Amino acid sequence: MRSLKERIRTEATVIGSDILKVDHFLNHQVDVDFLQEIAQEFYRHFKDEPITKILTVEASGIAVAVATAMLFRVPVVFAKKAASLNLDQDTYTSEVYSFTRQTSYHMKVSSRYLDHQDHVLIIDDFLANGRAVQGMIDIVHQAGASLAGVGIVIEKGFQEGGQQLRQQGIKVVSLAIIDAMDENHIQFRE
Amino acid sequence: MRSLKERIRTEATVIGSDILKVDHFLNHQVDVDFLQEIAQEFYRHFKDEPITKILTVEASGIAVAVATAMLFRVPVVFAKKAASLNLDQDTYTSEVYSFTRQTSYHMKVSSRYLDHQDHVLIIDDFLANGRAVQGMIDIVHQAGASLAGVGIVIEKGFQEGGQQLRQQGIKVVSLAIIDAMDENHIQFRE
Repeated sequence: MRSLKERIRTEATVIGSDILKVDHFLNHQVDVDFLQEIAQEFYRHFKDEPITKILTVEASGIAVAVATAMLFRVPVVFAKKAASLNLDQDTYTSEVYSFTRQTSYHMKVSSRYLDHQDHVLIIDDFLANGRAVQGMIDIVHQAGASLAGVGIVIEKGFQEGGQQLRQQGIKVVSLAIIDAMDENHIQFRE
Repeated sequence: MRSLKERIRTEATVIGSDILKVDHFLNHQVDVDFLQEIAQEFYRHFKDEPITKILTVEASGIAVAVATAMLFRVPVVFAKKAASLNLDQDTYTSEVYSFTRQTSYHMKVSSRYLDHQDHVLIIDDFLANGRAVQGMIDIVHQAGASLAGVGIVIEKGFQEGGQQLRQQGIKVVSLAIIDAMDENHIQFRE
């Protein structure tokens, strides 16, 4: 997605070898006009699939997932990361290690919101090592649902998550794939 | 909002005296068509204010805030609850006690995303004791920004949050206010 790469190139900040900050338009402050362009891209790639649910994980995936679901006109389900009094007892659960937060958490989805009739599109803002997406795929499998694919805004192509998913035969659509980056340069995959 | 009250009346589950579960359309699974109706209501109430930013807090406020921001065509900023390597060091911070999660957390917003030129609409899914909203108001004040008001989907009118905000002279628009509830009956404020 040309406009996304252009925004990353001109506006993102790289810290060290691993952190790409795009929190002024994607995951802390959200540019909602641009979000709708992103959603249109996902719609274009997956519109021929009979999607019934969009699945994401709180928190920063929610904005992208909601904008995408508005185009498919299907519900969004967001997996929960934290225990809550309000969550059903009957859940699909997957344990996920977060490198960003440097801790593991239990990703949970109430079993009322996914079942074997669902055809699921997973949406997230970032894909790096892929642990969050693998957790969501685990939950899709636990529900007996089918997976349409995975839509990612920014993939860190120098980490292994995207490659592992594609080797599993999963359709992964990343709107920008970064193959290398440092404080002076960001190299995108063509 | 008549359609919201009707959905709460016919679809919500009340647990004990305090928990209202609407997680099949609002805060775990999200009905995006209905979300857009909710956003239209907030737009109708605040469209004459020169809003520059919508502020919410992760995670379950994000969906409502994004849908609302699409109508105002302004950015959403979502306050973070958890420490992250990706968050700026320079933040507005407010300590908030969550009754739902039975623990305190530090709500943070990067100081890059709110300043004295902003006129802020705070959006959240629930208002009960009001601690999360008071934390966001604290952050708006720290930024030197002005507050247009607070838009809430469901207010628990039998808890003190809404009354306290209105006593402070803040415009609070709650699309449904529940004055009493138990497992057999939900009473709305007219």
